[in-house]
Amino acid sequence: MIGNVIVGQSGGPTAVINSSLAGVYKTAKDKGVKKVYGMLNGIQGLLEERYIELEQELKSQVEVELLKRTPSSYLGSCRYKLPDAKDNSEVYDKIFQVLKKLEVEYFFYIGGNDSMDTIMKLSKYAASIGSNIRFMGVPKTIDNDLEATDHTPGYGSAAKYIAGTTKELIRDSLVYDQKNLTIIEIMGRNVGWLTGAAALSKGDDCEGPDMIFLPELAFDMDDFMLKLEQLQKVKKSVVIAISEGIHLADGRYVCELVDRTKYTDNFGHTLLSGSGNYLANKVSTEFGCKARAIELNTIQRSASHLASLVDINEAFLVGGAAVSAAIAGETGKMIILKRISTSPYQCITDVYDINKIANLEKKIPAGWIGEDGISVTNEFLDYARPLIQGELTPYMVDGLPRHLVYSKKKQ
Amino acid sequence: MIGNVIVGQSGGPTAVINSSLAGVYKTAKDKGVKKVYGMLNGIQGLLEERYIELEQELKSQVEVELLKRTPSSYLGSCRYKLPDAKDNSEVYDKIFQVLKKLEVEYFFYIGGNDSMDTIMKLSKYAASIGSNIRFMGVPKTIDNDLEATDHTPGYGSAAKYIAGTTKELIRDSLVYDQKNLTIIEIMGRNVGWLTGAAALSKGDDCEGPDMIFLPELAFDMDDFMLKLEQLQKVKKSVVIAISEGIHLADGRYVCELVDRTKYTDNFGHTLLSGSGNYLANKVSTEFGCKARAIELNTIQRSASHLASLVDINEAFLVGGAAVSAAIAGETGKMIILKRISTSPYQCITDVYDINKIANLEKKIPAGWIGEDGISVTNEFLDYARPLIQGELTPYMVDGLPRHLVYSKKKQ
Repeated sequence: MIGNVIVGQSGGPTAVINSSLAGVYKTAKDKGVKKVYGMLNGIQGLLEERYIELEQELKSQVEVELLKRTPSSYLGSCRYKLPDAKDNSEVYDKIFQVLKKLEVEYFFYIGGNDSMDTIMKLSKYAASIGSNIRFMGVPKTIDNDLEATDHTPGYGSAAKYIAGTTKELIRDSLVYDQKNLTIIEIMGRNVGWLTGAAALSKGDDCEGPDMIFLPELAFDMDDFMLKLEQLQKVKKSVVIAISEGIHLADGRYVCELVDRTKYTDNFGHTLLSGSGNYLANKVSTEFGCKARAIELNTIQRSASHLASLVDINEAFLVGGAAVSAAIAGETGKMIILKRISTSPYQCITDVYDINKIANLEKKIPAGWIGEDGISVTNEFLDYARPLIQGELTPYMVDGLPRHLVYSKKKQ
Repeated sequence: MIGNVIVGQSGGPTAVINSSLAGVYKTAKDKGVKKVYGMLNGIQGLLEERYIELEQELKSQVEVELLKRTPSSYLGSCRYKLPDAKDNSEVYDKIFQVLKKLEVEYFFYIGGNDSMDTIMKLSKYAASIGSNIRFMGVPKTIDNDLEATDHTPGYGSAAKYIAGTTKELIRDSLVYDQKNLTIIEIMGRNVGWLTGAAALSKGDDCEGPDMIFLPELAFDMDDFMLKLEQLQKVKKSVVIAISEGIHLADGRYVCELVDRTKYTDNFGHTLLSGSGNYLANKVSTEFGCKARAIELNTIQRSASHLASLVDINEAFLVGGAAVSAAIAGETGKMIILKRISTSPYQCITDVYDINKIANLEKKIPAGWIGEDGISVTNEFLDYARPLIQGELTPYMVDGLPRHLVYSKKKQ
């Protein structure tokens, strides 16, 4: 009999983070694991001994399939950073005490950079106390900013939603025969993988966004206004995609240009506005044309109704591969995706030393950003397009996609 | 041989306005109409003699099916209000001159209140000059505010998108084990049909929004803060749906509460903020909890990737019924939908005098709003739920829904 498994989810939700959970669960059960525990709200919940037995929730393959179609983190999440063991050994004592009680031998954590930091610290601590519990990281983040892996599960689905929504918004912006600007504000504060995905909307039936502003480059306000003015001479409807993290050369975010001391309501509350709203207001004031900012907001990370099948399958795969690797003896590693062929697209999994991944951030390579500074190259598109392919039809009930919720806390 | 047809689209786009266009086109061709013209940018384009021959664009049933899956107004739109004929007969002369040149006998206009005003004026003018061109209105608006008809095509799809997105946002809001408020800001300035649709998200797998604020009722700021405070005592994650048009008892919109003289950036530009942002800022300042406003924005009216099949079919139906009625001799009428059975849901079409519809606005009946003032009743849900049923699978090409664009202006 193989020892018990515990799995947790951490950081921001994605449309496919639960497919990785399904991959861990299904593979563990297929390999003969007796019990698979799910920690509620990640490591923070584990410290409070909050967990569920997944066998009680995933009673048939129907629930597993529903789980793959459920967005956000089924088990709940946290943003808890483990202290260094030398500063606070009590936290580690508590964690290992709970794991011992549950007879856990394999620990999986689905998340991004911070979560990999957790795996790194726990595996080091285990080695230091001679514990043979194995700790494995399962990559997840819509931002696609993890090092070593070709891409991260979660990115493809967010990219598909962004590209699909951009297509619809471009069509929407074309209806009136008058000058107008639409600004689509996209997540990704420091890296532009998601913003660049808006360019995937370009095709026979869509021109794509007219300009793309990535956080990898400094944003020049005068240059932006000039380029927009030139564009508006040749086309009435202009659509641009911006990262929420666009910033000036001096490092200030565009959304910080507002004088916050003035920026209050009648009750003295400070009002915040995003970069898109800032630019829309500036353009409508200076150019006198209609300008609208649309923040895709958290919808882009939880839109499982338009998830990518490639992404869902790869999310499941990295979860399953983590279980296989751990049972084969690995610990302190993260599963990565390696692209072994671009045409046709093929990716396989591998394991990678977590020390070389945690707390790093992968930006778009300079060569994948257009020389004009407002586009992405074909290399970027060839990289991203395979990741948005295919759909997994939601289970529709009474007109809406059905989700799986765990029985303790129906919502 | 039946005389030629011309069809136009007007007002804001919807996910299914093109299905009505397909219904007009397909029915006209089936009935033996030789030519079906499409006016570009509605009546405004017609005045400039901008139109296309739909036979050149819809060459096979594949294009017709693609048109049904294409959001926004395929022919472009306008917000042009016809002057009264006694004030400006030149405009009418021009229109009838173009129609005569094109040998048009049937004129169809797909739109909302303002578009029905256009049909009313044109049919009256035709009668006054002894023209036998027939003018018919085809209802369209996501707002669902047209009188006489049970509901308007466009509403069901927007409602489905709103309910589906609300479900995903509620799941997203639940991941962290900490106090937070999510405000979903929904279209519909004067009527709450769309905002109420957020309640359709409630079911076995979702609690639905905790409070709903409709524009039919005055918004009381103190009462809102009190209710929120009470809610936050029993649950950490609160999600509310508000109409973009919520207003105080004195008529001021909530988004107008900002002192705009103070509300400028470093360059002196006035900054605007929506009602959702206003409330989120107020709550986070006064209650010290995380609060986020999410504007569904124009995405909700153009999200054809999650359109309702019932809505698409009814949009097609009202287009076709307008053609049948016009050929049968009707003019100056709008097609309406009549619900003849609720369980099972059945709707049929009828014709209705446009003078009794144009320029009126249908609000939610008082009895369909909960006595607590922050919910909708089961009557509302029973009314709206049949309208979001079913899906029409998009034609997916390279990972994204394919749209139809007309050949003159590829976009």
